[in-house]
Amino acid sequence: MALEFFRLKTREEVLALYSRFAPVEAETVPLAEARGRVLARDLAAPETLPAFPRAAMDGYAVRAADTFGATPGLPQYLELAGEVAMGEAPGLTLAPGQAARLPTGGMLPGGADAVVMVEYAAELPDGTVEVRRPVAPGENVVRPGEDVRAGEVLLMAGRRLKPQDLGLLAALGVGEVTVYRRPRVAVLSSGNEIVPLSASPGPGQVRDANAYLTLAQVEEAGGLPAYVGIVPDDAEALSAALAAALPRADLLLISGGSSVGARDLTLAALQSLPEAEVLVHGVAIRPGKPTILAAAAGIPVLGLPGHPASAAIVMQVLGRPLVARLGGAQEASPAWGGRVLARLSRNLAGATGREDFVRVRLRPEGETLWADPLLGPSALLSPLVKSDGLVTIPLGQEGIFQGELVEVELFPG
Amino acid sequence: MALEFFRLKTREEVLALYSRFAPVEAETVPLAEARGRVLARDLAAPETLPAFPRAAMDGYAVRAADTFGATPGLPQYLELAGEVAMGEAPGLTLAPGQAARLPTGGMLPGGADAVVMVEYAAELPDGTVEVRRPVAPGENVVRPGEDVRAGEVLLMAGRRLKPQDLGLLAALGVGEVTVYRRPRVAVLSSGNEIVPLSASPGPGQVRDANAYLTLAQVEEAGGLPAYVGIVPDDAEALSAALAAALPRADLLLISGGSSVGARDLTLAALQSLPEAEVLVHGVAIRPGKPTILAAAAGIPVLGLPGHPASAAIVMQVLGRPLVARLGGAQEASPAWGGRVLARLSRNLAGATGREDFVRVRLRPEGETLWADPLLGPSALLSPLVKSDGLVTIPLGQEGIFQGELVEVELFPG
Repeated sequence: MALEFFRLKTREEVLALYSRFAPVEAETVPLAEARGRVLARDLAAPETLPAFPRAAMDGYAVRAADTFGATPGLPQYLELAGEVAMGEAPGLTLAPGQAARLPTGGMLPGGADAVVMVEYAAELPDGTVEVRRPVAPGENVVRPGEDVRAGEVLLMAGRRLKPQDLGLLAALGVGEVTVYRRPRVAVLSSGNEIVPLSASPGPGQVRDANAYLTLAQVEEAGGLPAYVGIVPDDAEALSAALAAALPRADLLLISGGSSVGARDLTLAALQSLPEAEVLVHGVAIRPGKPTILAAAAGIPVLGLPGHPASAAIVMQVLGRPLVARLGGAQEASPAWGGRVLARLSRNLAGATGREDFVRVRLRPEGETLWADPLLGPSALLSPLVKSDGLVTIPLGQEGIFQGELVEVELFPG
Repeated sequence: MALEFFRLKTREEVLALYSRFAPVEAETVPLAEARGRVLARDLAAPETLPAFPRAAMDGYAVRAADTFGATPGLPQYLELAGEVAMGEAPGLTLAPGQAARLPTGGMLPGGADAVVMVEYAAELPDGTVEVRRPVAPGENVVRPGEDVRAGEVLLMAGRRLKPQDLGLLAALGVGEVTVYRRPRVAVLSSGNEIVPLSASPGPGQVRDANAYLTLAQVEEAGGLPAYVGIVPDDAEALSAALAAALPRADLLLISGGSSVGARDLTLAALQSLPEAEVLVHGVAIRPGKPTILAAAAGIPVLGLPGHPASAAIVMQVLGRPLVARLGGAQEASPAWGGRVLARLSRNLAGATGREDFVRVRLRPEGETLWADPLLGPSALLSPLVKSDGLVTIPLGQEGIFQGELVEVELFPG
């Protein structure tokens, strides 16, 4: 059990290495199943939207010029030429001095260039329409192409599709989209002390909690998680399990022991893999220092620390961006997403030479949102469950004072 | 086509009505499938965690008192009694003056009450351990029950399960959880102008974009969406389609026409349903005024406005909380979730007598996050796609000035 000195990389240095891993291939999925998937190609509009001039309000299609000067005291009177039904081409063309009844969304008849809202018009028994307010050309009308022009690039590759994107694509008749397939992420637990969830742990044994946590984080990040199982602390067994998982995975996660011995073993097993390269052996973050990043046959392998809180935080700050990169997403989330400003409720000292991630619980009190640090050891799960997110003390900063405004990166879900 | 005056309800009044609808029943699911599901019962810990005293660091188990006074210049020397292996009960008990090697996570042997980190100890050739720093009792040890005590309520009913919750439950051997089943939400589109996505719309016709948008929003809110299809503007057909969908749904959404005629039709169809009661006919929000809430045989029915942006915003501010209520969730999201502070980039005038929801696009510029209002008509989809969230101008407020700090409710996804 030798004391080992890590050559620590910063978080930014680790993230910069991800560009060497290519996103997975694309696949085509029906629009109805595309929510949350990542576009693999820029998507241009195949059609113009709307395709025809539509009424934005219930009312009367008119030639705008015919309404100029109309007031409640001195209305304009137009001849009611007929009615436009929903979903049909208008059966009429407006001559000067004419109006046609039409509902919201109805197609404007030829000759018409505006709609008088029903509130400002009245049908008289003699077949005329009284207009009490003028409309400008184009008023209360949605013009062809006002929403989308054919050929316009609507959504860029790398975008995670939202409900409103699906709505727009449906309107354009785009029935399927080309998206990156979900990266397959194999999760392998190593450690002699680890037993399956269904087991009754004996003395010195614990259940495989980290795997459940990691698998759920993978799924949340858009990956397709697969649980490989538990491998004992044995370099050959670990190496064999990794080699077996490699061909069916786009990313391997080792939910491992946090002892120096377990790390040595993981390193040895990684180095035995085909085209193995250890890229990172220790990251300048707290918790999460003993994180390992390697590549085997071009596939990234992330060795997570053994303490559950450390593993969860490493997944949040390093694992999610890697799953996002492999899945073709522009970024895990926009800069403003999943963050909130709060006031720190006590002084926090940083870790020398490390970027420090502190679990906090948010507590609204009047107008103030407080961030209460939860300082339990990384070996505990319950402070993680009680926390809402992370406050970062940047590398080189001694700490943050009570009362300072901090940005809290919220845990997703 | 009569001009209709709504008795408008405020958003709060509508939300208050949701308490009359009971959450759906519970079901039991395996832990691995429980992410994002809502707990139906308070969950108490069946076991204590950890079950035995564990080392939080690699090092040596000791009796703390034996290390008192140790310094680099004047170390204490302890007899190395043996080693504790991972995953096993220690095969030894420490006598005074003894130490035992043990890895992070290993079980403390009897007699030991602290761990000296490997960094502050050295094994000498004569079988003794040199300790260069004292430890206090309990130092570097995770005590039994320090994480969780058996019987302690860990997670409350109504909580949406996060990855870390699954980790904690796995550690406790909880292999399945009782959650509310996902509320089944039937989405029915009505309108003579609406054709399926696969059709080529003729003059006056449009594809069923709103249904795709709404279905995706339902899914995102935790509901189980089901697309009923398109029903023409005919009270009997609409009534029959609603009645047919009712027995298989926990919530009916009508993605409807926005013309007064279409609304009248929807109302008539709703009133023809068994045990029908129209609860809300018009909401004091913009967009979204023509929203309808009804109950039929105890099942809520929400009539959405026809303009896509209006429908999306009504789903966000009224639909999501209803799906959450039916699904047993304590709230759609915590007060601080999905919100961000930004500076408004132009003056915004509110709508008299209405709570106003303005789509905004977020734009970081140096240290400032700007919210740019997107003021396109509700009939357009593309401003919705370009927007990141909503700024609310409260009821009774005349507007918001350029440069003011506003809270942006982010669109999920």
